[in-house]
Amino acid sequence: MTATAPLPLSLPLASRMSRMTTSAVREILKVAERPDVLSFAGGLPAPELFPVEAVARAHAEVLATDGAAALQYSVTEGYGPLREWISRLMERRGLRAPAGSILVTNGSQQGLDLVGKVLLNPGDVVAVENPSYLAALQVLGGYEVQLEPLASDDEGLDVEELEALLKSGRRPKLVYVVPNFGNPKGTRLSLTRRRRLVELAQAYGVPILEDDPYGELLFSGEPLPPLAALDELGVVITLSTFSKTLAPGLRVGWMVAPPSLLKGLTIAKQAADLHTGTLVQRATARLLEDFDYAGHVERIRSAYGERCHTMHEALREFMPEGTRWTRPDGGMFLWVELPEGFSARALFKEALAERVAFVPGDAFFVREPQDRFLRLNFSNRTPAFIREGMERLGRVVQAHARTR
Amino acid sequence: MTATAPLPLSLPLASRMSRMTTSAVREILKVAERPDVLSFAGGLPAPELFPVEAVARAHAEVLATDGAAALQYSVTEGYGPLREWISRLMERRGLRAPAGSILVTNGSQQGLDLVGKVLLNPGDVVAVENPSYLAALQVLGGYEVQLEPLASDDEGLDVEELEALLKSGRRPKLVYVVPNFGNPKGTRLSLTRRRRLVELAQAYGVPILEDDPYGELLFSGEPLPPLAALDELGVVITLSTFSKTLAPGLRVGWMVAPPSLLKGLTIAKQAADLHTGTLVQRATARLLEDFDYAGHVERIRSAYGERCHTMHEALREFMPEGTRWTRPDGGMFLWVELPEGFSARALFKEALAERVAFVPGDAFFVREPQDRFLRLNFSNRTPAFIREGMERLGRVVQAHARTR
Repeated sequence: MTATAPLPLSLPLASRMSRMTTSAVREILKVAERPDVLSFAGGLPAPELFPVEAVARAHAEVLATDGAAALQYSVTEGYGPLREWISRLMERRGLRAPAGSILVTNGSQQGLDLVGKVLLNPGDVVAVENPSYLAALQVLGGYEVQLEPLASDDEGLDVEELEALLKSGRRPKLVYVVPNFGNPKGTRLSLTRRRRLVELAQAYGVPILEDDPYGELLFSGEPLPPLAALDELGVVITLSTFSKTLAPGLRVGWMVAPPSLLKGLTIAKQAADLHTGTLVQRATARLLEDFDYAGHVERIRSAYGERCHTMHEALREFMPEGTRWTRPDGGMFLWVELPEGFSARALFKEALAERVAFVPGDAFFVREPQDRFLRLNFSNRTPAFIREGMERLGRVVQAHARTR
Repeated sequence: MTATAPLPLSLPLASRMSRMTTSAVREILKVAERPDVLSFAGGLPAPELFPVEAVARAHAEVLATDGAAALQYSVTEGYGPLREWISRLMERRGLRAPAGSILVTNGSQQGLDLVGKVLLNPGDVVAVENPSYLAALQVLGGYEVQLEPLASDDEGLDVEELEALLKSGRRPKLVYVVPNFGNPKGTRLSLTRRRRLVELAQAYGVPILEDDPYGELLFSGEPLPPLAALDELGVVITLSTFSKTLAPGLRVGWMVAPPSLLKGLTIAKQAADLHTGTLVQRATARLLEDFDYAGHVERIRSAYGERCHTMHEALREFMPEGTRWTRPDGGMFLWVELPEGFSARALFKEALAERVAFVPGDAFFVREPQDRFLRLNFSNRTPAFIREGMERLGRVVQAHARTR
């Protein structure tokens, strides 16, 4: 009866795990981390802009004045004053979202998981912009759904393609969209398409998952309304986060959900981890009380705008004829399209030899990966390094062109 | 095409949500929170023992010396020095667990969810001690499994009942067990049964989920080895947490998993929320560097031991003949069995009138709830209040007995 050989047992995994694998990008990021490489592969905000002192002061004050409560268990929905502050922030973004409609999450990533848990059955169709945010594809895939790619251009996802899908027999259970400066392309959804998208979702009763981590990082043009602000029927769930405006290491995000879904999302959050850290929520709320949030975000916008502009100018100077790239009005990324016949995968290796790195774009496609794209991050490097990096990249691309 | 009436749309939920409902206990806890009620219903550690100053100092030091890194994204596995410290802690508990086998989670609750995600398919059988930890039943139920209750007595779950189940056609995919001072009963699994449980799991290739949030809160008797320490074949996953030894509001827990499962668990964690907060992990590691952890835990043990003893003595003094209760060697709860014919549900209302509260035990049963039990928490009240509360409770029970 007792096992005789101490060989590790191999335990069968749940079927969903066949859909959840380490992404190729993780391996690329590891290589790109080599200290001699000037990398534009990562997706990190600029750490020199983190409000370190304000975070330290807020933690100190909360622990000095209300330490025991800040270290105790708390409610799943989130810390009241923080939800109130987020409610006012969303109102400034154009969305009336009472505190009671807000659920605090561990970054917006957790919101993706909770929405999947509450809405998705295996086999459901989920429509996603193509290319799309990898970690969203991964978490949605884990619910064993069929991801249905929708084409996108510089104005975001193609809503007519969505309409065709809605009219077909494969009506999606959810539409996933990053409306502002999405990863990887950096483009945003036009106002016309926003309106049309919400209309379609309402008409067909299909919920939209609006993932908006980057919306506040607008550095040119006017802000556009959140999809949820265009929706009176409760078909839009909005995710957002302080990861790009305060700091990602806090892991404080939130979702705004229609009443019909909020209870289920809260139960799912409770099962997932009871609640987000009490201390970090109270410290964040304390910080926001007297912090110049708008001024701080303005500094980030201005820095990222300058970096994006520098990258744009350097690409124009160093890239060969026939190379195209997106012109983001905000966010952290831009998306380069190489001339016909180029391979971003092949280029990646050559770029490493020149000590510069990016993410080959094929990984972001849901189906039929295209190998002529690369994602560049501009938030995590100063203008001087961006210029130097684009010069190196330009040399690699020019050399690649000559050898073709 | 555009919807005409602005009525909120009702969106269909995933089928798993029919298994994830708010627990009745939540409602009970709300009522018990009335300020005039002396409540033993909650499950909170004693906040006056939280190391508030050490937490404050650690946050301040980390932010002063390494602020930008502490606020940046970090790796899913967890902060290296924290995993190293946990590895040494587990070794002191009798388990060789290299840092590489440890995944940092948001409290041990998140570990439950990740294990469910990685191992469980809908329809799988999961064997659980009965009665059992409610939030575990909730998260496991969310994976649409069949929960199979195993009887338990004062030495923990009945391993012979497990063997019968393993031999039947309904072999479980997972066995869930809280070996030390479980919620609600406060009992622990005997050494003989630990050995037998691991033998059975190995022989049948069925993983054990060992959920151990309370193991360090031992205040009488000798510690028993973790199940994972008795296992050389990699069938045990162990969950633990700093929630009961440092503070729950930090939400820092961990799991130790066999190599065959660790990769999947890490991918699931990455999809769920990328990683646990960088700042809180670094601050916890910093705190542990020069904190007298053993001395601190000893103070908690001593306080909880005194509280448990006080409750025991008061129950003996005030409870009628025929009442039984468990005699925990650690933890935060004890479990009272009322004499034949009593109803804990009915008693709850009468107790509220006397301004004392507990959790009626029926909620903790997987099937065929029994209504003669009540759960009492002793960690969250000083001895004087415990005595006062048990006196009130005794009056209620005596009055209830007279009216029967």
